[in-house]
Amino acid sequence: MRLQELTKTSGEWLRGTGPDSDIVISSRIRLARNLAQFPFGNRADKHEQQEIEELLCQYFQKLKGKWKFHYFNVEELDNLDRQLLVERQLISRELADSEGVRGVAFVRKENISVMVNEEDHLRIQAIQSGFSLEKVWKEIERLDDAIEEHVDYAFHQNFGYLTACPTNVGTGIRVSVMMHLPALVITNQMEKVFRALSKINLAVRGVYGEGSQPMGDFYQISNQLTLGKSEQEIIRNLQAVVPNIIDYERQAREALVKESRQELHDKVSRAHGILKTAHTISSEETMHLLSSIRMGFNLGLLDDLEINTINELFIHTQPAHLQKIRGSSLDSAERNAERAKFLRKHLRAVEKPNGDH
Amino acid sequence: MRLQELTKTSGEWLRGTGPDSDIVISSRIRLARNLAQFPFGNRADKHEQQEIEELLCQYFQKLKGKWKFHYFNVEELDNLDRQLLVERQLISRELADSEGVRGVAFVRKENISVMVNEEDHLRIQAIQSGFSLEKVWKEIERLDDAIEEHVDYAFHQNFGYLTACPTNVGTGIRVSVMMHLPALVITNQMEKVFRALSKINLAVRGVYGEGSQPMGDFYQISNQLTLGKSEQEIIRNLQAVVPNIIDYERQAREALVKESRQELHDKVSRAHGILKTAHTISSEETMHLLSSIRMGFNLGLLDDLEINTINELFIHTQPAHLQKIRGSSLDSAERNAERAKFLRKHLRAVEKPNGDH
Repeated sequence: MRLQELTKTSGEWLRGTGPDSDIVISSRIRLARNLAQFPFGNRADKHEQQEIEELLCQYFQKLKGKWKFHYFNVEELDNLDRQLLVERQLISRELADSEGVRGVAFVRKENISVMVNEEDHLRIQAIQSGFSLEKVWKEIERLDDAIEEHVDYAFHQNFGYLTACPTNVGTGIRVSVMMHLPALVITNQMEKVFRALSKINLAVRGVYGEGSQPMGDFYQISNQLTLGKSEQEIIRNLQAVVPNIIDYERQAREALVKESRQELHDKVSRAHGILKTAHTISSEETMHLLSSIRMGFNLGLLDDLEINTINELFIHTQPAHLQKIRGSSLDSAERNAERAKFLRKHLRAVEKPNGDH
Repeated sequence: MRLQELTKTSGEWLRGTGPDSDIVISSRIRLARNLAQFPFGNRADKHEQQEIEELLCQYFQKLKGKWKFHYFNVEELDNLDRQLLVERQLISRELADSEGVRGVAFVRKENISVMVNEEDHLRIQAIQSGFSLEKVWKEIERLDDAIEEHVDYAFHQNFGYLTACPTNVGTGIRVSVMMHLPALVITNQMEKVFRALSKINLAVRGVYGEGSQPMGDFYQISNQLTLGKSEQEIIRNLQAVVPNIIDYERQAREALVKESRQELHDKVSRAHGILKTAHTISSEETMHLLSSIRMGFNLGLLDDLEINTINELFIHTQPAHLQKIRGSSLDSAERNAERAKFLRKHLRAVEKPNGDH
């Protein structure tokens, strides 16, 4: 498999088919794991890093019957390919930017990936469309168990899984749900959400695209504590809280429709119009407008759209994707033109003749 | 004929078929005439005004073989219908707003109209698409002569035609050309045009739509002097000058395309996108965006458009037209919604499937 192929597909989790996917983009769990016989990543020398990589690659081979992993040596990739994997959410920005022997294994559907020699020896990740943490947990638990058949994880009877950074000790789990909350943003209610969640030890952070530009009203909600609670308890905590935020966003959307339907319709429809016709457009404006049409589509204010197309455009209009699609390095102005071209093409492709916007 | 029918048609001069109609919307001539046996309008009493109207209506009947006039008594029309005729450029705002017996006769193609009891007893007007003053002159001269067969015009051997206001004495002629000059506006060159034209006694004024909002980059160029020159000399003066302004605008457009094609393409394409998708839009924004797409179409940057559609939209999206089309009185917010609906409908009607913007 060549990385170039990624530009023609998208992760299964982007299809928008999961529960509550009008508001919850994806549910994700990652586990931090280390091999008992090696020093932690920050202490391992180049030779040890290499040994870790070789060992893990052998295990990935052994799992082939259940997960058909493709492995990429991140050290050998050029910057563009590394950035592509970051945009794809298959690797962290930290793995892309660090040095030394490191890599990533993932399956073609992109619902499972394993980073090698990130902060920990293994960072196992599973992701699904919509609000479906149970499904994600089952899949990642199965993979974690399967790997553990072949390796000794660093584990302490009292503390649990040991990790390079103490904040991950215990379960080594991070459970996160990516939510699209445009109506709470418009109605200035995100502060309330931030405060409520921090009281119960959940973190909320904006999702950022190119540079530090906020990616149109997306927020990631995740656990902060990994110690003293079981994985199931941490997941249940999110499962209890997220539906309240979903309700909260739905109410805000309904209120907007009720109180200013025309303005809202105008806003989302114009966003669609601009995305379909611009000939140069920045990443920031794109994210902002895509966020608008995503909400508009989910409120039934726009037709001539498909939710997976909108979801994919958030990823495919990012810099590395555009450059891989074009097949050449592009400066910022060239990317803005290429992005506009890409948007026109893909938004007009789903258009029905004579649909009213 | 009912005035309502006007909302379903448009004047022939809007078809964009005349010479240089990428830049010259229309050529127009009006003649101020008075009947010798009556006092000027500002001195005539109600009874005399009525006599003038009756006489002229009889003459319009006599001309039926050559011009099939429809006569409307403006005093009896409601405000909306008066405003409709103003938007249509069939009567002046002054005739609409004044008091007393007054009216207008026009032919169905709207290339000929005669106001009765405006400032002068007769204001005869002829208009054609594009830069075609010769054609307009021939038509209006024919009509003027035909009317003169039936009436005695107020005429003085030394001064020429006598008019209510001394500024029109002599030929009583106003020759004007309405031009679309967006590139000269963008490149800040209109000041130069103003100065050059005022030196040779030509007036330039912006064209205004609803209230005092400028109607997207349209300018009317006309003679200021009516005395001491023949009609032919006045027309020849315009005929000599206007081609220079056309060239000047064409050069500015070409320079824009050459130096910033992408920005220009982006601007006109987004304008098209917004007009096709907005759900509420002001008159001012509409005029501004229509001006953009008119230039874009003429520069070959936009397809999926027809020039007569664009020209008509400038007129049909004005307040009285929208209210007549809707069949009810609308406040400003309702008009903005109705305008957006009208634009979506008419701009999507000309769209070809899969055209790239």
